[in-house]
Amino acid sequence: MTETASPYAALENRFARIARIDDALGILHWDYETTMPEGAAPTRAETLATLDVLRHDLLVDPQVADWLDAADAGADVGLDEWQRANLREMRRAWRHAIAVPGDLVEASRRAEATCEMAWRRARAEDDFAGLLPSLSEVLNLQRQVAEAKAAAFGCDKYDALLDAYEPGGRAARIDALFADLADFLPGFTDEVLEAQARAPDPVRPIGHFPIDRQRGLGRELMQAIGFDFDHGRLDVSAHPFCGGGLSDVRITTRYDEGDFTRSLMGVMHETGHALYEQGRPAGWLAQPVGQARGMAAHESQSLLVEMQTARSRPFLEYLAPLVRDTFGGDGPAWTADNLYRLYTRVERSLIRVDADEVTYPAHIILRFRLERAMIGGDLKLADLPGAWAEGMRALVGVVPPNDALGCLQDIHWPGGGWGYFPTYTLGALAAAQLFEAARQDGSEIEAGIGHGNFGPLVDWLRSHVHGHGSRPENGDALLEEATGRPLDTGAFKRHLNRRYVERAW
Amino acid sequence: MTETASPYAALENRFARIARIDDALGILHWDYETTMPEGAAPTRAETLATLDVLRHDLLVDPQVADWLDAADAGADVGLDEWQRANLREMRRAWRHAIAVPGDLVEASRRAEATCEMAWRRARAEDDFAGLLPSLSEVLNLQRQVAEAKAAAFGCDKYDALLDAYEPGGRAARIDALFADLADFLPGFTDEVLEAQARAPDPVRPIGHFPIDRQRGLGRELMQAIGFDFDHGRLDVSAHPFCGGGLSDVRITTRYDEGDFTRSLMGVMHETGHALYEQGRPAGWLAQPVGQARGMAAHESQSLLVEMQTARSRPFLEYLAPLVRDTFGGDGPAWTADNLYRLYTRVERSLIRVDADEVTYPAHIILRFRLERAMIGGDLKLADLPGAWAEGMRALVGVVPPNDALGCLQDIHWPGGGWGYFPTYTLGALAAAQLFEAARQDGSEIEAGIGHGNFGPLVDWLRSHVHGHGSRPENGDALLEEATGRPLDTGAFKRHLNRRYVERAW
Repeated sequence: MTETASPYAALENRFARIARIDDALGILHWDYETTMPEGAAPTRAETLATLDVLRHDLLVDPQVADWLDAADAGADVGLDEWQRANLREMRRAWRHAIAVPGDLVEASRRAEATCEMAWRRARAEDDFAGLLPSLSEVLNLQRQVAEAKAAAFGCDKYDALLDAYEPGGRAARIDALFADLADFLPGFTDEVLEAQARAPDPVRPIGHFPIDRQRGLGRELMQAIGFDFDHGRLDVSAHPFCGGGLSDVRITTRYDEGDFTRSLMGVMHETGHALYEQGRPAGWLAQPVGQARGMAAHESQSLLVEMQTARSRPFLEYLAPLVRDTFGGDGPAWTADNLYRLYTRVERSLIRVDADEVTYPAHIILRFRLERAMIGGDLKLADLPGAWAEGMRALVGVVPPNDALGCLQDIHWPGGGWGYFPTYTLGALAAAQLFEAARQDGSEIEAGIGHGNFGPLVDWLRSHVHGHGSRPENGDALLEEATGRPLDTGAFKRHLNRRYVERAW
Repeated sequence: MTETASPYAALENRFARIARIDDALGILHWDYETTMPEGAAPTRAETLATLDVLRHDLLVDPQVADWLDAADAGADVGLDEWQRANLREMRRAWRHAIAVPGDLVEASRRAEATCEMAWRRARAEDDFAGLLPSLSEVLNLQRQVAEAKAAAFGCDKYDALLDAYEPGGRAARIDALFADLADFLPGFTDEVLEAQARAPDPVRPIGHFPIDRQRGLGRELMQAIGFDFDHGRLDVSAHPFCGGGLSDVRITTRYDEGDFTRSLMGVMHETGHALYEQGRPAGWLAQPVGQARGMAAHESQSLLVEMQTARSRPFLEYLAPLVRDTFGGDGPAWTADNLYRLYTRVERSLIRVDADEVTYPAHIILRFRLERAMIGGDLKLADLPGAWAEGMRALVGVVPPNDALGCLQDIHWPGGGWGYFPTYTLGALAAAQLFEAARQDGSEIEAGIGHGNFGPLVDWLRSHVHGHGSRPENGDALLEEATGRPLDTGAFKRHLNRRYVERAW
């Protein structure tokens, strides 16, 4: 493949090639989680690691630095806004890759693979002490990665990790947003729980719900919302995700034949992620500027579909007859009213992934504060269980009886995903802010939801979020364009009030 | 990744990395054929092409030539037999890659992709003239590839293409084997058809045969024969194949709910291929010496399971009660005797993939002679339909009424697979020769087949074929080790006689 004379064109060629490796990696990861026979796992892990290395080599190739320098120095005349933004995103990807020595990357990957295995056992056996050695190793390496990146970027160590998931994100800003939530949520939660106690308890529909019917309903809803099955799939995996390749977006769920409600809402969540992926700017799919604008923006889209849309009263009025038809259900458990009570139930609980949207932020604030302290050296890993219990008591209002239901519940830290947690709640705030702006832009957006007409909403998301890829410099810039202001907590609090106090959405 | 000082060790590292790309390509190809949503096809094709380029770049890297030269000059002391054979196979792979200029490879790939599309239409519309331009382009490029390789290898042009599928294969030798068959088969076929006409006609079982039952029976048989589902899968595709990755062997079939017999035997065929892949030498899976010893050897394993084993009378006696149980069948169509008549039916027919094992070689001899003449410049593409009809008349004894049922039936030439065809019949000869040797090595091998006990046969294949990978220099060397002599037609003719004249197997 010959590289042309223009540095920018050479960079586009190189990043297109990298995107092809990402396409391959995406499908191979999907296959790993959904399809691969178990005995192939070690071989596949090696293959994934090899493709990662090839990808890394293409990125840290000295030519790339030369092209970036030349392009940044203005060697290419007449670059348009998208091309300039693409160049900025190329530089960002390159900075992350070049900042960390290859052997540190390798050592981290190995330590994380080992620790993930140890974590599965440790969680099952509630054995934090047993996990401590391998988790210490992961943390130690994460701190080295953070140090290397912080030195290269000229920023705080935690911010250097955060930047990989939320470009331009800063812990100080998150701190301020989270402090506001930590101030608001305890009193609000009390109020909601009191009101909830005075209302009838929701009833879970009981019965046998065959997988093929659940799948059929899921596909029907996905299609209604705008998922393109000519460029995507719905499959099964132990841990639901949205993945796949460049123009091949694959979401997964897991089915419980005794309870359709969780899988159904899980499919809605992943459909939100998938809409973002399928709505990325067509001409830029294989370039950095064509990617989603960070993990908070990505989570905002899943929560916009799941929380803002699918758990709303109008959506559940649209859904109720569909689930009755699909499963032959009848009686008080199958009314829209009951489904609404079920899907908006609030409870102080121990497990993040099962938490409702009112208490969820407290789980995240806890993790954010703890991981920041550990990266900063202000909290020793050995002291984590105690700090966890204390934080749960203060923030959520319950205390785990053991570590399995406490600090061992998530794979993020064993897997090396330090700096990821805050994006969940940033996404929840952004979802509320975007949905509020969308509602104000056109009354048919909200009205359509009750009639299964999601076109107006999805059109708004395509034109205000999906289609912009990473052209806006960061998540705040995207939100400013779409909603007129950077991220704040206002819309989220208004949403919680409207849903849990007014019971109007 | 640092390369060690030893040239041989450096080569092992490099080829292991190439094997990882092959692993990725294998799974991505499988996904393309079985799973991928249609809209992703253009993107996936680009991704596959990019991985091909990365693979090619790793192979033609000048360092590889240096390492090969140093290793061949004896820089590594104490290489054992497997390592020396591995070095020989590395050199072979490198010679094929380096012989053809990159732009010729690219041009061929593009022309083949275009021609395959044109061929689908041309076959459907019986339009040879419409295919002529793009097929001429493919042939033209194949001749250039052949010329480049012939110059590099110092051999005949057709042999240079053949070598990619059958290392060390020579057209002159194939010519001699095929002349012998072409001499024997016409009279033999007449004799078989006369005897067949005097026997009762087979009856095809009629009914509705649900896919899940066909799949269940297929899996049961695969498992009985020794397929390892912890390192493999059975799936569905339009065109059955055996593919997948390094330790993840995936075969496919297609089901017809009105006829289980074809899919069932197709699964047996692919299981033979899969046993070879799953039986490759464990320590060498990711090295050239660990690969199957050419396409004829590969086909010998599929035919050994399908033709030598699964269409035998004892196997069908074992199978008959299983199919009766699976599909609830009863009556004359469901007896072992009838299944044997059905599965050993001989007929002069037009379509290669539907041909029986008696007439199949004639289809191959025709294609071999025609493609050799076209590569050599002795037959013009425009004259192909006439030459095809004449060859069919002379060799098979039937004449196609049109090109769709004639020279347009196979994808091999449009897809650039010139030099591949003879391996089908070389494989049939090898299957008979290997099976005959196996039977002579232990009576329990043949006896086991009638009782669904395939262990002795598969053990023999593992120790005489699968486990040797490409350690023997070529297919003849493999056969000499396993059967005491290079490939000949004797065992195949004895097999045909035993089955179709004596009706004893």
